[in-house]
Amino acid sequence: MQADTKTINIHQGILLKNDELARRIRQRFNEIGTLVLNVLSSPGSGKTALLEQTLSRLHPTCSCAVIVGDLATDNDARRLRRAGAPVVQITTGTVCHLEASMIEQACSELDLKSCRVLFIENVGNLVCPASYDLGESLRVVLLAVTEGEDKPLKYPKIFKTADLILVTKMDLAGLAGFDLEQVRSNLATIAPQAEVIYLSSRNGEGMDAWLNWIQQRAGTCRV
Amino acid sequence: MQADTKTINIHQGILLKNDELARRIRQRFNEIGTLVLNVLSSPGSGKTALLEQTLSRLHPTCSCAVIVGDLATDNDARRLRRAGAPVVQITTGTVCHLEASMIEQACSELDLKSCRVLFIENVGNLVCPASYDLGESLRVVLLAVTEGEDKPLKYPKIFKTADLILVTKMDLAGLAGFDLEQVRSNLATIAPQAEVIYLSSRNGEGMDAWLNWIQQRAGTCRV
Repeated sequence: MQADTKTINIHQGILLKNDELARRIRQRFNEIGTLVLNVLSSPGSGKTALLEQTLSRLHPTCSCAVIVGDLATDNDARRLRRAGAPVVQITTGTVCHLEASMIEQACSELDLKSCRVLFIENVGNLVCPASYDLGESLRVVLLAVTEGEDKPLKYPKIFKTADLILVTKMDLAGLAGFDLEQVRSNLATIAPQAEVIYLSSRNGEGMDAWLNWIQQRAGTCRV
Repeated sequence: MQADTKTINIHQGILLKNDELARRIRQRFNEIGTLVLNVLSSPGSGKTALLEQTLSRLHPTCSCAVIVGDLATDNDARRLRRAGAPVVQITTGTVCHLEASMIEQACSELDLKSCRVLFIENVGNLVCPASYDLGESLRVVLLAVTEGEDKPLKYPKIFKTADLILVTKMDLAGLAGFDLEQVRSNLATIAPQAEVIYLSSRNGEGMDAWLNWIQQRAGTCRV
């Protein structure tokens, strides 16, 4: 290394700044009693379909809101608004994850005092979003049966930071040749801290368990 | 901005350095006549299954090699070695994409002079790998029918830089409720430059078209 060069760990600095803001956001959510779920997965694992079904059952009795992150388009926001809950879209351009500063800005557009559950639908990506604390209460990671049972081993960080893992598209498990015993074993190895619910937004399997899981954590909400 | 601060566009600098190295790598591949395909997709779109089938049909008559990128595990490399082609695994840790410098290092472990087709199986991610030129001849982007027909609109950059788009898992198209007309329209809007082949590694649909596509570009290879 030349004498006039200096190495700066930029990534570490960005994350520290993000984490500080995330802590402040989390404190604010705690004070107003809003449960915030950071929903993470690969593209096409069924985040939006799950949230559509969830809002249609939950929002009538338990006030919800959604922040949606995408590189481009507001398709998901438009789909989710049909359930009647307020939805804020964040379009990230080329950024592969949401950051706490984006959540802070999106929250300024929401009336959070009347909101019991805030869902954050993160950018579809199993890598980058794992490193960014958004101030959420809990992390929910989706794994679709069509992606294969090996994904927890190949993308360990996001599964290791999950509080709940939803194995989605269970209606396609047989046809996709999905090995349930293998995924159970892989999840027990990589993410023993996480609860696991097997569900299908299409045929409703597991939806009661998922809604009960939210209700138990959202305090005053009835599902 | 304070007088003693200076803004540096770090990302731009990293990409410029990567692109310079990628140009040198591409020149070397051109000189030795190796077709290099950068294979990109979301996690679980079927990259490894496709390459398993491809190598078993192509490698016996047309010498192939594979470089595989993953955050963790060498599962894919072990699967691919069964077809007899040399495979080098790159484990990226937390890095969400392959870079040209990783390819340069991996190539030092391969005898490229006897290799007609080099497949690079990139990290499963629809965002980050789009920005990194690896010195490839052509880019192949996979989209599984189980991910939904809206993904080209939501992740435009990776589809805009594709030379070929493979719509995979076609055996599940009916059950997944995949709208073929819609995906054709979305691909024509976002990626009019790309050829499109619809295939299934499981039932063999479209595999001849994919192998012919390679053969036409690999010069002296018979499939």
